[in-house]
Amino acid sequence: MPQKDDAAIEVTGFAWVPPFAQGFVRDLRVRWALEEVGLDYRTRLISAMERPQSYFGEQPYGQVPYYVEGDLHLFESGAIVLHIAEKDERLLPRDPVARARAITWLISALNSVEPYIMNMVTIDGFCAGQEWATLRRPAQVEMMERRLQHLSAALGDRDWLEGRFTVADLIMVDALRNLSPDQLSIPQNLLDYVERGKARPAFQAALAAQLADFTPDQEGVPA
Amino acid sequence: MPQKDDAAIEVTGFAWVPPFAQGFVRDLRVRWALEEVGLDYRTRLISAMERPQSYFGEQPYGQVPYYVEGDLHLFESGAIVLHIAEKDERLLPRDPVARARAITWLISALNSVEPYIMNMVTIDGFCAGQEWATLRRPAQVEMMERRLQHLSAALGDRDWLEGRFTVADLIMVDALRNLSPDQLSIPQNLLDYVERGKARPAFQAALAAQLADFTPDQEGVPA
Repeated sequence: MPQKDDAAIEVTGFAWVPPFAQGFVRDLRVRWALEEVGLDYRTRLISAMERPQSYFGEQPYGQVPYYVEGDLHLFESGAIVLHIAEKDERLLPRDPVARARAITWLISALNSVEPYIMNMVTIDGFCAGQEWATLRRPAQVEMMERRLQHLSAALGDRDWLEGRFTVADLIMVDALRNLSPDQLSIPQNLLDYVERGKARPAFQAALAAQLADFTPDQEGVPA
Repeated sequence: MPQKDDAAIEVTGFAWVPPFAQGFVRDLRVRWALEEVGLDYRTRLISAMERPQSYFGEQPYGQVPYYVEGDLHLFESGAIVLHIAEKDERLLPRDPVARARAITWLISALNSVEPYIMNMVTIDGFCAGQEWATLRRPAQVEMMERRLQHLSAALGDRDWLEGRFTVADLIMVDALRNLSPDQLSIPQNLLDYVERGKARPAFQAALAAQLADFTPDQEGVPA
Protein backbone atom coordinates (compact mmCIF):
# COMPACT_ATOMS: atom_id res chain seq x y z
CA MET A 1 0.00 0.00 0.00
CA PRO A 2 2.03 3.01 -1.26
CA GLN A 3 -0.02 5.71 0.50
CA LYS A 4 1.90 6.64 3.68
CA ASP A 5 1.91 9.80 5.77
CA ASP A 6 5.70 9.97 5.95
CA ALA A 7 6.41 9.20 2.30
CA ALA A 8 8.99 11.31 0.47
CA ILE A 9 6.69 11.90 -2.51
CA GLU A 10 3.72 14.23 -2.11
CA VAL A 11 0.81 14.21 -4.55
CA THR A 12 -1.77 17.00 -4.46
CA GLY A 13 -5.37 16.08 -5.21
CA PHE A 14 -8.80 17.49 -4.50
CA ALA A 15 -10.52 17.10 -1.13
CA TRP A 16 -13.80 16.48 -2.89
CA VAL A 17 -15.37 16.61 -6.35
CA PRO A 18 -18.95 16.01 -7.50
CA PRO A 19 -19.88 12.33 -7.95
CA PHE A 20 -19.61 12.37 -11.78
CA ALA A 21 -15.93 13.33 -11.50
CA GLN A 22 -14.98 10.97 -8.69
CA GLY A 23 -12.52 8.39 -9.97
CA PHE A 24 -11.67 10.62 -12.95
CA VAL A 25 -9.53 13.33 -11.34
CA ARG A 26 -6.09 13.20 -12.88
CA ASP A 27 -4.11 12.55 -9.74
CA LEU A 28 -5.38 9.02 -10.36
CA ARG A 29 -2.79 8.69 -13.11
CA VAL A 30 0.00 9.55 -10.72
CA ARG A 31 -1.33 7.22 -8.01
CA TRP A 32 -1.62 4.48 -10.66
CA ALA A 33 1.98 4.93 -11.81
CA LEU A 34 3.23 4.91 -8.21
CA GLU A 35 1.23 1.76 -7.48
CA GLU A 36 2.67 0.05 -10.57
CA VAL A 37 6.21 0.53 -9.29
CA GLY A 38 5.45 0.33 -5.55
CA LEU A 39 6.62 3.83 -4.60
CA ASP A 40 5.14 5.33 -1.44
CA TYR A 41 3.39 8.69 -1.53
CA ARG A 42 1.45 10.99 0.75
CA THR A 43 -1.42 13.17 -0.37
CA ARG A 44 -2.12 16.85 0.12
CA LEU A 45 -5.77 17.65 -0.55
CA ILE A 46 -6.96 21.10 -1.60
CA SER A 47 -10.44 22.42 -2.24
CA ALA A 48 -11.57 22.08 -5.84
CA MET A 49 -14.31 24.62 -5.21
CA GLU A 50 -12.17 27.34 -3.64
CA ARG A 51 -8.65 26.76 -4.84
CA PRO A 52 -6.18 28.64 -2.66
CA GLN A 53 -4.77 31.62 -4.60
CA SER A 54 -1.26 30.66 -3.50
CA TYR A 55 -1.70 27.31 -5.24
CA PHE A 56 -1.60 29.03 -8.65
CA GLY A 57 2.01 29.89 -7.83
CA GLU A 58 2.69 26.16 -7.82
CA GLN A 59 0.33 24.84 -10.48
CA PRO A 60 -0.16 27.59 -13.09
CA TYR A 61 -3.77 26.65 -13.88
CA GLY A 62 -4.81 25.71 -10.35
CA GLN A 63 -5.31 22.10 -11.37
CA VAL A 64 -4.29 18.80 -9.84
CA PRO A 65 -2.14 16.74 -9.66
CA TYR A 66 0.91 18.53 -8.33
CA TYR A 67 3.94 16.45 -7.40
CA VAL A 68 6.74 17.17 -4.94
CA GLU A 69 9.79 14.97 -4.48
CA GLY A 70 12.59 16.77 -2.71
CA ASP A 71 13.65 19.72 -4.87
CA LEU A 72 11.47 18.53 -7.71
CA HIS A 73 8.12 20.28 -8.17
CA LEU A 74 6.16 19.01 -11.15
CA PHE A 75 2.72 19.50 -12.63
CA GLU A 76 0.91 17.91 -15.60
CA SER A 77 -0.11 14.32 -15.00
CA GLY A 78 1.59 13.27 -18.25
CA ALA A 79 4.92 14.74 -17.18
CA ILE A 80 4.67 13.34 -13.66
CA VAL A 81 3.98 9.80 -14.81
CA LEU A 82 6.83 10.07 -17.30
CA HIS A 83 9.12 11.16 -14.47
CA ILE A 84 7.99 8.17 -12.39
CA ALA A 85 8.34 5.87 -15.39
CA GLU A 86 11.95 6.93 -15.88
CA LYS A 87 12.70 5.41 -12.48
CA ASP A 88 11.48 1.93 -13.37
CA GLU A 89 11.62 -0.18 -16.50
CA ARG A 90 8.28 -1.74 -15.65
CA LEU A 91 6.74 1.50 -16.91
CA LEU A 92 9.37 2.55 -19.45
CA PRO A 93 11.69 0.14 -21.27
CA ARG A 94 15.39 0.97 -21.05
CA ASP A 95 16.17 -0.09 -24.61
CA PRO A 96 16.46 3.27 -26.45
CA VAL A 97 14.18 2.37 -29.34
CA ALA A 98 11.47 0.82 -27.15
CA ARG A 99 11.76 3.77 -24.75
CA ALA A 100 11.29 6.32 -27.51
CA ARG A 101 8.33 4.40 -28.95
CA ALA A 102 6.65 4.35 -25.52
CA ILE A 103 7.15 8.11 -25.20
CA THR A 104 5.76 8.60 -28.71
CA TRP A 105 2.57 6.82 -27.65
CA LEU A 106 2.44 8.71 -24.35
CA ILE A 107 2.54 12.01 -26.23
CA SER A 108 0.06 10.65 -28.75
CA ALA A 109 -2.41 9.91 -25.96
CA LEU A 110 -1.96 13.41 -24.53
CA ASN A 111 -1.93 15.47 -27.74
CA SER A 112 -3.72 13.43 -30.43
CA VAL A 113 -6.33 11.40 -28.57
CA GLU A 114 -7.24 13.08 -25.29
CA PRO A 115 -8.11 16.49 -26.82
CA TYR A 116 -10.78 14.79 -28.93
CA ILE A 117 -12.04 12.91 -25.88
CA MET A 118 -12.23 16.11 -23.85
CA ASN A 119 -14.35 17.66 -26.60
CA MET A 120 -16.67 14.65 -26.42
CA VAL A 121 -16.88 15.00 -22.64
CA THR A 122 -17.69 18.69 -23.08
CA ILE A 123 -20.43 17.99 -25.62
CA ASP A 124 -22.03 14.98 -23.92
CA GLY A 125 -21.28 16.01 -20.33
CA PHE A 126 -20.62 19.60 -19.29
CA CYS A 127 -22.59 21.16 -22.15
CA ALA A 128 -25.13 18.41 -22.89
CA GLY A 129 -28.34 19.89 -24.22
CA GLN A 130 -26.81 23.24 -25.15
CA GLU A 131 -27.68 24.23 -28.70
CA TRP A 132 -24.08 24.54 -29.87
CA ALA A 133 -23.30 21.08 -28.51
CA THR A 134 -26.26 19.51 -30.28
CA LEU A 135 -25.26 21.18 -33.54
CA ARG A 136 -21.59 20.28 -33.22
CA ARG A 137 -22.05 16.72 -32.01
CA PRO A 138 -22.30 14.80 -35.32
CA ALA A 139 -19.01 16.21 -36.68
CA GLN A 140 -17.24 15.72 -33.36
CA VAL A 141 -18.45 12.11 -33.14
CA GLU A 142 -17.30 11.48 -36.71
CA MET A 143 -13.80 12.80 -35.95
CA MET A 144 -13.61 10.88 -32.68
CA GLU A 145 -14.73 7.62 -34.30
CA ARG A 146 -12.21 8.02 -37.10
CA ARG A 147 -9.45 8.59 -34.58
CA LEU A 148 -10.55 5.53 -32.60
CA GLN A 149 -10.53 3.43 -35.77
CA HIS A 150 -6.96 4.49 -36.49
CA LEU A 151 -5.95 3.77 -32.91
CA SER A 152 -7.69 0.40 -33.11
CA ALA A 153 -5.77 -0.49 -36.26
CA ALA A 154 -2.50 0.51 -34.59
CA LEU A 155 -3.24 -1.62 -31.51
CA GLY A 156 -4.33 -4.58 -33.61
CA ASP A 157 -4.47 -7.81 -31.65
CA ARG A 158 -1.77 -6.84 -29.17
CA ASP A 159 -2.50 -6.45 -25.47
CA TRP A 160 -0.69 -3.11 -25.23
CA LEU A 161 0.36 -0.43 -27.73
CA GLU A 162 3.94 -1.65 -28.02
CA GLY A 163 3.33 -5.25 -26.97
CA ARG A 164 4.13 -4.86 -23.28
CA PHE A 165 2.51 -2.48 -20.77
CA THR A 166 4.17 0.93 -20.53
CA VAL A 167 3.39 4.40 -19.20
CA ALA A 168 1.79 5.12 -22.58
CA ASP A 169 -0.90 2.51 -21.96
CA LEU A 170 -1.52 3.96 -18.52
CA ILE A 171 -2.34 7.38 -20.01
CA MET A 172 -4.13 6.04 -23.08
CA VAL A 173 -6.40 3.78 -21.01
CA ASP A 174 -7.14 6.55 -18.53
CA ALA A 175 -8.10 8.88 -21.37
CA LEU A 176 -10.19 6.31 -23.26
CA ARG A 177 -12.20 5.27 -20.23
CA ASN A 178 -13.96 8.66 -20.43
CA LEU A 179 -15.78 7.36 -23.51
CA SER A 180 -18.73 5.00 -23.44
CA PRO A 181 -20.14 2.76 -26.18
CA ASP A 182 -23.47 4.42 -25.36
CA GLN A 183 -22.05 7.64 -26.82
CA LEU A 184 -20.41 6.47 -29.99
CA SER A 185 -18.96 3.47 -31.75
CA ILE A 186 -15.82 2.12 -30.06
CA PRO A 187 -13.90 -0.74 -31.69
CA GLN A 188 -14.02 -3.95 -29.67
CA ASN A 189 -10.24 -4.22 -29.30
CA LEU A 190 -10.16 -0.77 -27.69
CA LEU A 191 -12.95 -1.70 -25.28
CA ASP A 192 -10.99 -4.82 -24.36
CA TYR A 193 -7.82 -2.74 -24.02
CA VAL A 194 -9.48 -0.36 -21.55
CA GLU A 195 -10.87 -3.26 -19.51
CA ARG A 196 -7.41 -4.85 -19.47
CA GLY A 197 -5.96 -1.63 -18.10
CA LYS A 198 -8.68 -1.17 -15.50
CA ALA A 199 -8.22 -4.76 -14.35
CA ARG A 200 -4.64 -4.14 -13.30
CA PRO A 201 -4.27 -4.28 -9.51
CA ALA A 202 -2.37 -0.97 -9.57
CA PHE A 203 -5.27 0.79 -11.29
CA GLN A 204 -7.76 -0.68 -8.83
CA ALA A 205 -5.61 0.38 -5.87
CA ALA A 206 -5.21 3.91 -7.27
CA LEU A 207 -8.92 4.25 -7.91
CA ALA A 208 -9.78 3.06 -4.40
CA ALA A 209 -7.23 5.46 -2.91
CA GLN A 210 -8.60 8.47 -4.80
CA LEU A 211 -12.18 7.64 -3.80
CA ALA A 212 -11.19 7.05 -0.18
CA ASP A 213 -9.55 10.47 0.02
CA PHE A 214 -12.73 12.41 -0.80
CA THR A 215 -14.16 13.97 2.36
CA PRO A 216 -17.61 15.42 1.60
CA ASP A 217 -17.90 17.41 4.83
CA GLN A 218 -14.93 19.59 3.85
CA GLU A 219 -17.06 21.06 1.09
CA GLY A 220 -20.15 21.42 3.24
CA VAL A 221 -21.74 18.48 1.50
CA PRO A 222 -23.51 15.92 3.70
CA ALA A 223 -21.29 12.86 4.14
CA MET B 1 22.00 24.35 -43.32
CA PRO B 2 20.80 21.03 -41.82
CA GLN B 3 18.70 19.91 -44.79
CA LYS B 4 20.81 17.43 -46.77
CA ASP B 5 19.86 14.63 -49.14
CA ASP B 6 22.19 12.12 -47.54
CA ALA B 7 21.37 12.94 -43.91
CA ALA B 8 20.79 10.04 -41.50
CA ILE B 9 17.59 11.57 -40.12
CA GLU B 10 14.48 11.57 -42.30
CA VAL B 11 11.51 13.84 -41.59
CA THR B 12 8.22 13.31 -43.40
CA GLY B 13 6.19 16.38 -44.29
CA PHE B 14 3.51 17.32 -46.78
CA ALA B 15 4.29 18.08 -50.42
CA TRP B 16 1.80 20.93 -50.37
CA VAL B 17 -0.91 22.43 -48.15
CA PRO B 18 -3.32 25.32 -48.75
CA PRO B 19 -1.80 28.77 -48.14
CA PHE B 20 -3.47 29.28 -44.71
CA ALA B 21 -1.65 26.21 -43.39
CA GLN B 22 1.74 26.90 -44.92
CA GLY B 23 4.26 27.55 -42.19
CA PHE B 24 2.00 25.88 -39.63
CA VAL B 25 2.40 22.19 -40.48
CA ARG B 26 3.90 20.43 -37.50
CA ASP B 27 7.03 19.10 -39.15
CA LEU B 28 8.14 22.70 -38.57
CA ARG B 29 8.64 21.83 -34.91
CA VAL B 30 10.98 19.02 -35.81
CA ARG B 31 12.88 21.13 -38.34
CA TRP B 32 13.16 23.87 -35.71
CA ALA B 33 14.57 21.50 -33.09
CA LEU B 34 17.07 20.07 -35.59
CA GLU B 35 18.13 23.60 -36.60
CA GLU B 36 18.63 24.56 -32.94
CA VAL B 37 21.13 21.76 -32.45
CA GLY B 38 22.56 21.70 -35.99
CA LEU B 39 21.56 18.14 -36.90
CA ASP B 40 21.21 17.35 -40.59
CA TYR B 41 17.98 15.88 -41.96
CA ARG B 42 16.45 14.93 -45.26
CA THR B 43 12.75 15.27 -46.06
CA ARG B 44 10.26 12.81 -47.48
CA LEU B 45 7.18 14.60 -48.78
CA ILE B 46 3.79 12.90 -49.06
CA SER B 47 0.50 14.17 -50.40
CA ALA B 48 -1.71 15.80 -47.78
CA MET B 49 -4.71 15.45 -50.08
CA GLU B 50 -4.33 11.76 -50.92
CA ARG B 51 -2.33 10.24 -48.11
CA PRO B 52 -0.92 6.88 -49.16
CA GLN B 53 -2.82 4.07 -47.38
CA SER B 54 0.49 2.42 -46.48
CA TYR B 55 1.48 5.56 -44.57
CA PHE B 56 -1.15 4.80 -41.90
CA GLY B 57 0.95 1.76 -41.05
CA GLU B 58 3.70 4.18 -40.06
CA GLN B 59 1.78 7.14 -38.65
CA PRO B 60 -1.47 5.83 -37.12
CA TYR B 61 -3.50 8.92 -38.00
CA GLY B 62 -1.89 9.65 -41.37
CA GLN B 63 -0.43 12.89 -40.06
CA VAL B 64 2.99 14.49 -40.28
CA PRO B 65 5.68 14.68 -39.04
CA TYR B 66 7.10 11.19 -39.08
CA TYR B 67 10.72 10.71 -38.05
CA VAL B 68 13.17 7.97 -38.97
CA GLU B 69 16.67 7.66 -37.52
CA GLY B 70 18.14 4.21 -38.05
CA ASP B 71 15.93 1.72 -36.21
CA LEU B 72 13.95 4.50 -34.58
CA HIS B 73 10.58 5.32 -36.09
CA LEU B 74 8.72 8.07 -34.24
CA PHE B 75 5.59 10.10 -34.70
CA GLU B 76 4.02 12.99 -32.69
CA SER B 77 5.91 16.25 -33.04
CA GLY B 78 6.08 16.57 -29.24
CA ALA B 79 7.74 13.19 -28.85
CA ILE B 80 10.14 13.76 -31.74
CA VAL B 81 11.36 17.10 -30.44
CA LEU B 82 11.78 15.57 -26.98
CA HIS B 83 13.88 12.80 -28.54
CA ILE B 84 16.02 15.40 -30.32
CA ALA B 85 16.25 17.48 -27.15
CA GLU B 86 17.60 14.52 -25.21
CA LYS B 87 20.63 14.59 -27.51
CA ASP B 88 21.62 18.16 -26.69
CA GLU B 89 21.52 20.24 -23.55
CA ARG B 90 20.82 23.37 -25.58
CA LEU B 91 17.25 22.08 -25.81
CA LEU B 92 17.02 20.11 -22.57
CA PRO B 93 19.11 20.83 -19.46
CA ARG B 94 21.00 17.85 -18.04
CA ASP B 95 20.43 18.81 -14.41
CA PRO B 96 17.66 16.41 -13.31
CA VAL B 97 15.43 19.05 -11.74
CA ALA B 98 15.75 21.51 -14.63
CA ARG B 99 15.22 18.66 -17.10
CA ALA B 100 12.03 17.51 -15.40
CA ARG B 101 10.71 21.08 -15.22
CA ALA B 102 11.32 21.53 -18.96
CA ILE B 103 9.45 18.30 -19.68
CA THR B 104 6.62 19.44 -17.41
CA TRP B 105 6.23 22.59 -19.52
CA LEU B 106 6.55 20.62 -22.75
CA ILE B 107 3.65 18.39 -21.70
CA SER B 108 1.76 21.44 -20.46
CA ALA B 109 2.02 23.02 -23.89
CA LEU B 110 0.79 19.82 -25.54
CA ASN B 111 -1.99 18.82 -23.15
CA SER B 112 -3.11 21.97 -21.31
CA VAL B 113 -2.58 24.81 -23.79
CA GLU B 114 -2.64 23.49 -27.35
CA PRO B 115 -6.03 21.72 -27.07
CA TYR B 116 -7.64 25.08 -26.21
CA ILE B 117 -5.80 26.72 -29.09
CA MET B 118 -6.94 24.03 -31.51
CA ASN B 119 -10.53 24.67 -30.45
CA MET B 120 -10.02 28.38 -31.16
CA VAL B 121 -8.57 27.54 -34.57
CA THR B 122 -11.58 25.33 -35.25
CA ILE B 123 -14.05 28.03 -34.25
CA ASP B 124 -12.36 31.01 -35.92
CA GLY B 125 -10.82 29.10 -38.83
CA PHE B 126 -12.15 25.78 -40.08
CA CYS B 127 -15.71 26.32 -38.84
CA ALA B 128 -15.93 30.13 -38.90
CA GLY B 129 -19.48 31.25 -39.57
CA GLN B 130 -21.04 27.92 -38.64
CA GLU B 131 -23.90 28.35 -36.20
CA TRP B 132 -22.41 26.09 -33.52
CA ALA B 133 -19.12 27.99 -33.70
CA THR B 134 -20.83 31.35 -33.29
CA LEU B 135 -22.82 30.06 -30.31
CA ARG B 136 -19.81 28.41 -28.67
CA ARG B 137 -17.30 31.18 -29.28
CA PRO B 138 -17.85 33.39 -26.20
CA ALA B 139 -17.33 30.53 -23.73
CA GLN B 140 -14.34 29.19 -25.64
CA VAL B 141 -12.74 32.65 -25.76
CA GLU B 142 -13.32 33.06 -22.03
CA MET B 143 -11.61 29.73 -21.25
CA MET B 144 -8.74 30.49 -23.61
CA GLU B 145 -8.19 33.96 -22.17
CA ARG B 146 -8.20 32.60 -18.62
CA ARG B 147 -5.63 30.00 -19.59
CA LEU B 148 -3.47 32.64 -21.26
CA GLN B 149 -3.66 34.80 -18.13
CA HIS B 150 -2.45 31.90 -16.03
CA LEU B 151 0.34 31.18 -18.47
CA SER B 152 1.25 34.86 -18.54
CA ALA B 153 1.50 34.90 -14.74
CA ALA B 154 3.71 31.81 -14.80
CA LEU B 155 6.03 33.33 -17.41
CA GLY B 156 6.21 36.65 -15.59
CA ASP B 157 9.06 38.82 -16.78
CA ARG B 158 11.33 35.97 -17.78
CA ASP B 159 12.38 35.45 -21.39
CA TRP B 160 11.54 31.73 -21.34
CA LEU B 161 9.35 29.50 -19.18
CA GLU B 162 12.20 28.25 -17.01
CA GLY B 163 14.56 31.17 -17.55
CA ARG B 164 16.56 29.71 -20.41
CA PHE B 165 15.27 28.44 -23.78
CA THR B 166 14.28 24.77 -23.82
CA VAL B 167 12.28 22.38 -25.96
CA ALA B 168 9.22 23.44 -23.93
CA ASP B 169 9.47 26.98 -25.27
CA LEU B 170 9.81 25.63 -28.80
CA ILE B 171 6.47 23.82 -28.53
CA MET B 172 4.73 26.52 -26.49
CA VAL B 173 5.72 29.28 -28.94
CA ASP B 174 4.71 27.16 -31.92
CA ALA B 175 1.31 26.51 -30.37
CA LEU B 176 0.71 30.11 -29.26
CA ARG B 177 1.55 31.61 -32.65
CA ASN B 178 -1.75 30.15 -33.92
CA LEU B 179 -3.54 32.84 -31.90
CA SER B 180 -3.88 36.47 -32.93
CA PRO B 181 -4.66 39.55 -30.84
CA ASP B 182 -7.38 40.19 -33.43
CA GLN B 183 -9.19 37.13 -32.09
CA LEU B 184 -8.95 37.58 -28.37
CA SER B 185 -7.01 39.28 -25.62
CA ILE B 186 -3.41 38.04 -25.34
CA PRO B 187 -1.22 39.32 -22.49
CA GLN B 188 1.67 41.47 -23.70
CA ASN B 189 4.36 39.26 -22.17
CA LEU B 190 3.04 36.29 -24.15
CA LEU B 191 3.02 38.31 -27.38
CA ASP B 192 6.63 39.29 -26.69
CA TYR B 193 7.46 35.67 -25.84
CA VAL B 194 6.12 34.44 -29.18
CA GLU B 195 8.02 37.13 -31.08
CA ARG B 196 11.18 36.19 -29.18
CA GLY B 197 10.73 32.57 -30.26
CA LYS B 198 9.99 33.45 -33.88
CA ALA B 199 13.06 35.70 -33.98
CA ARG B 200 15.39 32.78 -33.30
CA PRO B 201 17.51 31.97 -36.36
CA ALA B 202 16.61 28.29 -36.02
CA PHE B 203 12.88 29.06 -36.23
CA GLN B 204 13.42 31.28 -39.27
CA ALA B 205 15.49 28.60 -40.99
CA ALA B 206 12.89 25.92 -40.22
CA LEU B 207 10.07 28.09 -41.51
CA ALA B 208 11.94 28.90 -44.72
CA ALA B 209 12.72 25.20 -45.21
CA GLN B 210 9.11 24.12 -44.79
CA LEU B 211 7.87 26.79 -47.20
CA ALA B 212 10.59 25.97 -49.74
CA ASP B 213 9.57 22.29 -49.76
CA PHE B 214 5.99 22.95 -50.91
CA THR B 215 5.60 22.11 -54.58
CA PRO B 216 2.19 23.30 -55.83
CA ASP B 217 2.30 21.37 -59.11
CA GLN B 218 2.33 18.04 -57.23
CA GLU B 219 -1.24 18.74 -56.14
CA GLY B 220 -2.36 19.98 -59.53
CA VAL B 221 -2.33 23.55 -58.27
CA PRO B 222 -0.76 26.14 -60.59
CA ALA B 223 2.71 27.02 -59.32
